[in-house]
Amino acid sequence: MVAELSRLRREIDELDTQLVELLARRMEIVSAVGKVKSQHGLPIYAPDREADMFARRRQDAVDRGIPPDLIEDILRRTMRESYQSEHDTGFKCVFPGLGPIVLVGGHGRLGRLFARLFESSGYAVRKLGEDDWADAGSMLSDAGLVVVTVPIAVTVEVIRRLPALPGRCVLADFTSIKSAPLEAMMAAHSGPVVGLHPMFGPDVPSLAKQVVAYCDGRQPEAYQWLLEQVQIWGATVHRISAVEHDQGMALIQALRHFTSFAYGVHLAEEDPGLADLLRLSSPIYRLELAMVGRLFAQDPHLYADIIMASPRNVDMIRRFHQRFGAALGVLETGDKGAFVAAFRQVSDWFGSYAPRFLRESRTLLQQANDAKDA
Amino acid sequence: MVAELSRLRREIDELDTQLVELLARRMEIVSAVGKVKSQHGLPIYAPDREADMFARRRQDAVDRGIPPDLIEDILRRTMRESYQSEHDTGFKCVFPGLGPIVLVGGHGRLGRLFARLFESSGYAVRKLGEDDWADAGSMLSDAGLVVVTVPIAVTVEVIRRLPALPGRCVLADFTSIKSAPLEAMMAAHSGPVVGLHPMFGPDVPSLAKQVVAYCDGRQPEAYQWLLEQVQIWGATVHRISAVEHDQGMALIQALRHFTSFAYGVHLAEEDPGLADLLRLSSPIYRLELAMVGRLFAQDPHLYADIIMASPRNVDMIRRFHQRFGAALGVLETGDKGAFVAAFRQVSDWFGSYAPRFLRESRTLLQQANDAKDA
Repeated sequence: MVAELSRLRREIDELDTQLVELLARRMEIVSAVGKVKSQHGLPIYAPDREADMFARRRQDAVDRGIPPDLIEDILRRTMRESYQSEHDTGFKCVFPGLGPIVLVGGHGRLGRLFARLFESSGYAVRKLGEDDWADAGSMLSDAGLVVVTVPIAVTVEVIRRLPALPGRCVLADFTSIKSAPLEAMMAAHSGPVVGLHPMFGPDVPSLAKQVVAYCDGRQPEAYQWLLEQVQIWGATVHRISAVEHDQGMALIQALRHFTSFAYGVHLAEEDPGLADLLRLSSPIYRLELAMVGRLFAQDPHLYADIIMASPRNVDMIRRFHQRFGAALGVLETGDKGAFVAAFRQVSDWFGSYAPRFLRESRTLLQQANDAKDA
Repeated sequence: MVAELSRLRREIDELDTQLVELLARRMEIVSAVGKVKSQHGLPIYAPDREADMFARRRQDAVDRGIPPDLIEDILRRTMRESYQSEHDTGFKCVFPGLGPIVLVGGHGRLGRLFARLFESSGYAVRKLGEDDWADAGSMLSDAGLVVVTVPIAVTVEVIRRLPALPGRCVLADFTSIKSAPLEAMMAAHSGPVVGLHPMFGPDVPSLAKQVVAYCDGRQPEAYQWLLEQVQIWGATVHRISAVEHDQGMALIQALRHFTSFAYGVHLAEEDPGLADLLRLSSPIYRLELAMVGRLFAQDPHLYADIIMASPRNVDMIRRFHQRFGAALGVLETGDKGAFVAAFRQVSDWFGSYAPRFLRESRTLLQQANDAKDA
């Protein structure tokens, strides 16, 4: 038995060694693709080409009797490295004649990410940090684009403090609320203005498939090159009004982060042994615990600023607390029928998204289980 | 440019075709490994062998200049199919002389999963459904193991209704609370008793790396074979007292599910456009929305039963609501310093788990992004 198992395992090891070799060769070719794309300004993420590739490999898998999801998952994972590798190759510069790009707050993590992206696309980049305000006038005098990327709490103040910009310079910001910064930028500058919100953190391996929301300010024709540049980096852009954006963020950011915060406070006060809790965890709970716990490895000021950015956020959180209380009231009466009826109303509201989310989350939970050791 | 890109893409396609072939050959060998393991009763999940394999392939990757995480992630994904394939091969029977196994509620989804597992391990399995109670006496008269796997709300009632079991028969249950069912089983049967809680849903591709919690009842030596059988299926077993288990579940199941329910109610009443919300979503929010939405694709009675299983659950939910309200009170005063101080206390409580969860969740968020199309 031992001999037979050893022989089979040696065969598996040989195949896996070939797999490493095959991936290495694939990455070499991908790197060559990256160079061609970079020279010709093609986006690093090509959805149609990918969909076509997945369809053909899925068919190969079916023909060869292996699960098509297996090959698609492996190719998708491999694509992540391809985006990263194409990312490192550099990008086409959409607006070669642009003056210097000044990132106000460019020493922050998001600022540094975009500084690298602009530089690897051939733009001249200047970072204006807290200590550089004495030189702000000269740093900004010939700017082609100014991006304000500072903590939310000081965004409006920093915008107001900007010296006069050249008339054709584009003024933009990366703040995760849009109404107040956009208003401040419109007042501070009479040239082109656009509000941007990169919907991802500074630790993404590339911008492939990430989303950048944008709110038109003034002279949109003057910043189309910027939206195009962002798409060449692999992101999709999503146009939205500042009001709608901020309403969405009250749900997407303020309420979610605050709920995680409150759950963390609750856990710390209940004080269960975290190690025991993890040993007992279903894959779902482990995932949820990780999503809560991750918050507390980060900067409290960042989250305080996001949550306290607008009185509307606090209103949203209060409404959730009230609805939670009302649902708890139903629970306390022990009225199972009322719980089931409320549940069904929400199911109707989710509609076809509920089964879709169930499928998506099943895939993610399986991946979480793959990543786990006993 | 087009010609060069086409040539490179043809090379990638050729490599990917080889990749499919390589995976197919790997799965054939894995299937042979499964047969050997099945004959000799080896567990389908071998953590040491896996750790050793990952370490060697990571080194190969480094030598060949590709990211070691890439090969490890691909091998982990491939292992999932291996477990599944070994699962289908059948398993060693730890207790060949055992009488029939009767699954009370065996027509439910979890009951059907375990029926398949027991059958593919060579046990005789009988399912006792709601309509079979007239025959319960004869179905149970020679049973070697009886497992109660019915909805929580009726578990205790079903246990009380069981006819007398053979003295050496093991009585077990799969309920997600343990105190009340264990007490009922101890009263209903004077032979061996064990409470089990499979910490996963019926849709897992295999039991590899899943957890089964167990609470000792009586004559543990009489059900060690069952714990061993569960481990051969790939799961790990975790011993815990019924009281500790139920306290953990109030947090892990009742509070989490109820919070998702309340968030669903809140979303439906706020009524944002879900399509717009998704377009605006960061990877984190999309994941959280999927974890909430998945609830509403499932059976409301199941969740009502889990949440209402114990008055302690409602107490836990009430404490969370109060703490959420207290934190909201701080928010309403606009006292950022108090928020930051509370946040830091929770960070201290999480300790080294917070950065660990941040790393884990980063991996999961990248996988979620891999799985996504634009």
